Amino acid sequence: MDKLIITAALTGAEVTREQQPNLPITPDEIAEAAYEAYQAGASLVHVHARKPDGTPTQDIEVYREIKEKVAAKCNIIFQPSTGGAVWHTAEERIQPALLKPEMASLTAGTCNFGPDVFMNTQEYMESFAKVMMENGVKPEIEIFERGMIDNALRMVKKGLLKTPIHFDFVMGVPGAIMGEPRDLMYLANSIPQGSTWTVAGIGRFELPLAVMAIVMGGHVRVGFEDNIFYTKGVVAESNAQLVARIARIAKECGREVAAPDEARQILGLVK
Amino acid sequence: MDKLIITAALTGAEVTREQQPNLPITPDEIAEAAYEAYQAGASLVHVHARKPDGTPTQDIEVYREIKEKVAAKCNIIFQPSTGGAVWHTAEERIQPALLKPEMASLTAGTCNFGPDVFMNTQEYMESFAKVMMENGVKPEIEIFERGMIDNALRMVKKGLLKTPIHFDFVMGVPGAIMGEPRDLMYLANSIPQGSTWTVAGIGRFELPLAVMAIVMGGHVRVGFEDNIFYTKGVVAESNAQLVARIARIAKECGREVAAPDEARQILGLVK
Amino acid sequence: MDKLIITAALTGAEVTREQQPNLPITPDEIAEAAYEAYQAGASLVHVHARKPDGTPTQDIEVYREIKEKVAAKCNIIFQPSTGGAVWHTAEERIQPALLKPEMASLTAGTCNFGPDVFMNTQEYMESFAKVMMENGVKPEIEIFERGMIDNALRMVKKGLLKTPIHFDFVMGVPGAIMGEPRDLMYLANSIPQGSTWTVAGIGRFELPLAVMAIVMGGHVRVGFEDNIFYTKGVVAESNAQLVARIARIAKECGREVAAPDEARQILGLVK
Amino acid sequence: MDKLIITAALTGAEVTREQQPNLPITPDEIAEAAYEAYQAGASLVHVHARKPDGTPTQDIEVYREIKEKVAAKCNIIFQPSTGGAVWHTAEERIQPALLKPEMASLTAGTCNFGPDVFMNTQEYMESFAKVMMENGVKPEIEIFERGMIDNALRMVKKGLLKTPIHFDFVMGVPGAIMGEPRDLMYLANSIPQGSTWTVAGIGRFELPLAVMAIVMGGHVRVGFEDNIFYTKGVVAESNAQLVARIARIAKECGREVAAPDEARQILGLVK
Ligand SMILES: [Mg+2]
Ligand SMILES: [Mg+2]
Ligand SMILES: [Zn+2]
Ligand SMILES: [Zn+2]
Ligand SMILES: [Zn+2]
Ligand SMILES: [Zn+2]
Repeated sequence: MDKLIITAALTGAEVTREQQPNLPITPDEIAEAAYEAYQAGASLVHVHARKPDGTPTQDIEVYREIKEKVAAKCNIIFQPSTGGAVWHTAEERIQPALLKPEMASLTAGTCNFGPDVFMNTQEYMESFAKVMMENGVKPEIEIFERGMIDNALRMVKKGLLKTPIHFDFVMGVPGAIMGEPRDLMYLANSIPQGSTWTVAGIGRFELPLAVMAIVMGGHVRVGFEDNIFYTKGVVAESNAQLVARIARIAKECGREVAAPDEARQILGLVK
Repeated sequence: MDKLIITAALTGAEVTREQQPNLPITPDEIAEAAYEAYQAGASLVHVHARKPDGTPTQDIEVYREIKEKVAAKCNIIFQPSTGGAVWHTAEERIQPALLKPEMASLTAGTCNFGPDVFMNTQEYMESFAKVMMENGVKPEIEIFERGMIDNALRMVKKGLLKTPIHFDFVMGVPGAIMGEPRDLMYLANSIPQGSTWTVAGIGRFELPLAVMAIVMGGHVRVGFEDNIFYTKGVVAESNAQLVARIARIAKECGREVAAPDEARQILGLVK
Repeated sequence: MDKLIITAALTGAEVTREQQPNLPITPDEIAEAAYEAYQAGASLVHVHARKPDGTPTQDIEVYREIKEKVAAKCNIIFQPSTGGAVWHTAEERIQPALLKPEMASLTAGTCNFGPDVFMNTQEYMESFAKVMMENGVKPEIEIFERGMIDNALRMVKKGLLKTPIHFDFVMGVPGAIMGEPRDLMYLANSIPQGSTWTVAGIGRFELPLAVMAIVMGGHVRVGFEDNIFYTKGVVAESNAQLVARIARIAKECGREVAAPDEARQILGLVK
Repeated sequence: MDKLIITAALTGAEVTREQQPNLPITPDEIAEAAYEAYQAGASLVHVHARKPDGTPTQDIEVYREIKEKVAAKCNIIFQPSTGGAVWHTAEERIQPALLKPEMASLTAGTCNFGPDVFMNTQEYMESFAKVMMENGVKPEIEIFERGMIDNALRMVKKGLLKTPIHFDFVMGVPGAIMGEPRDLMYLANSIPQGSTWTVAGIGRFELPLAVMAIVMGGHVRVGFEDNIFYTKGVVAESNAQLVARIARIAKECGREVAAPDEARQILGLVK
């Protein structure tokens, strides 16, 4: 079994300081949170940019600043979001991929997201995939429903995605696939052999699905984007605190945690 | 095991006469197709209205005419679509439910539909459910992905849907859940006990999923909306031809086909 | 999808004339039943020998006579049982494999069989596999429980079995794995890619599991060994009648039925 | 989710001092190991008796001595084995149930056990169940294969077992069901609602299956009977060391560990 890649999803587009007082917002805060997560065992950081007032932004310059500040602190893999917030245009969303990061997220279909719709039409997906391919960016394919796996495989057939694909199963969003253990088993059994996968359980699903991934050979994403609590009703102190718990459980389970360069090997990022 | 309810989805919103020369379009054609399907074993007819030129319409008057013409021929259960075409507004889509039919379809979430998006926001769903409840219409909950089951269950909690729910698993649409046997097993195991379900496999998935439903205790939808072929490359002669095959297979499998009043009992439509 | 191999399990070791008046017992009756099954669509015949009084026997001479009489009538694949009756010794059970038939059954583990125990120790299995390999006999690996698949794979590792394996899932025996659709899905997903499989549902499980196999790409075994009824409470007229129904359903499902030489290709029996 | 019941299977019938130098053998050693396991978080102890030379025995007097010595140290639930060693007779195996312990194990079917056969005919099972019912002993139903669940349910129908049943899934024995995550998911989905279950993964399957059970709402058995290693190639110091790791992981996962009286509540042992 490969070593465990822990991704820290530090900020997201929806969480507020009111909900989570320790949310990193500015490039400096995000870089510091990335560094703490790295020290706690994360080898990959999934980043959403915010304006100083906390509003989500896909501004390339903000992402550039975060990318540089993270790189100055440690060699964690930098993965900006192309999901953005539900109201961002496709053109805005793709901006950070132009920075040629090692990876970027790419959501493979449309679904409800609570009262909103997270729009990822075939046209969006294909244009994002094309930009990433041109810029040497490995996509992390975000899967919110079973059908999105096939959407990704259709892009493989069209030459827009390379295999093996790295999937991220985002589970438990109201409006998309549930986060029960059997749902994860189903998704993990629905991807082509040779693929890699991470699970990002939302809210109360974060921890149990992470634990299953550890023993199933998947990888784990935690962080304030997905879950702001450490235990029921208790807000986490930091993203690093959530990462550290996964690292401890992995160690108890006899699964080693991947350092960034080991994660690069597993994900095929090494040239 | 309950008797088998066969639904005929006669027309849909997308198929054209060019693709399927036998497509029923006018109210008279649709009523005649419903009657033939009834004679072949269908107890429920899922209807999309069209203008005389074949364009999809949600005009209540066209639905009224179809409803009356169908009722004049046989006692098949009449279930208009509130899905309409992907470009219809929510207000247009709900029109046929105002005719107080016994049932109407209600799609429980948003997904890609090939290059289009089939929009069913939480707001749409809830408003549709409310109109149906006020008009005594039993919704058939259309499920294109796993998460839509939970969307429906959330409406139950809000008092917008009554249980037991009747689900229709629409499987194999490009952009939504696949149509492999294991996908159907998964969905069928994801609904509350006491629910009823139908499967509508799209294209090449229609027949194998129908056959699985026959032996699993589910129900079956066939028709030109989902599949225009009788065998590979051979366009079906009529909706009734597709219905008749399912009735024959059910008979071979020792499962009796429900007449409309038996279907009403199974679906709880009888007052 | 490969053409469908229908196996007729004509006689078994347990069914009596009292239960099933049309049970073939003598070599002539068995050969005639094999021929009728062949005409109805079977390409493989699974044979248990009986003494004239109906007692099960593993006597090589009786099997020889049956083998010759079957071959005189048609080119159906001849597969004697090495399961015998639960009270046969291992030495008795292996006898028919010495006739160098194209195939023979090989049960891959021990389980309860109603009040009896069907003994297939590791020692039995391995000795049977060795005899079959030496005699150029392809085993059909009989699976009554999940763990038996791994028993077979361990024999592959020891060089006692060649891949691809052909499995037969015997489902619904009291004491062994159940015969619900989800049980078949589970077993079919538990074998190595490239394997072939047949399902033999016992009693009321025969028909639904057969139908699932048709659409899942598996193969089907029917016959008096597994099920004596045509419909609930109605004893079947002949093994051929059970075969013919499967052939008709397969045809309705658009799956062609394999002739014996086509089955040989699928099973790798052709030199 | 109920609190987690951790069972310590201290000794088993097969492990030797040569393999595991810390194996408890004498009643004093077993009682001390039970007490240590209790302190580490176990609320139930599964016991096999041994003679002073290490040979397995089902002698009621040895079990009586162990039972008393355990009870003198702590209030852990005492569950003797009626499995014994593969060569024990049924009469020997049932002896410890005559001591009227709160629970005893009852294996619900026959399977290979490496080169041996673990014999549990219908007759054995039913006689064991009867003795347990007469003596007020709650059986823990040991499941080595899917079909054993149905064997148990048949005993419920015959009035030989009460519901809700407590199952123990023993997974990864060579000859019986495998221990992959999907195998546990399958078994856990195959028991009646309202049942409770524990998983006992054998060897390398112990830890991953335990972790899955923690997040799936099952319970966990560990101990030298199932696995003698702490990490790959490193022999465990004590049964308590294995228990303590599960307790730590459960705590990290936010699942509380049940004290013996809490376990009695969950298992319905409280009068
Ligand atoms: Mg889904
Ligand atoms: Mg099994
Ligand atoms: Zn994100
Ligand atoms: Zn429709
Ligand atoms: Zn046989
Ligand atoms: Zn034991």
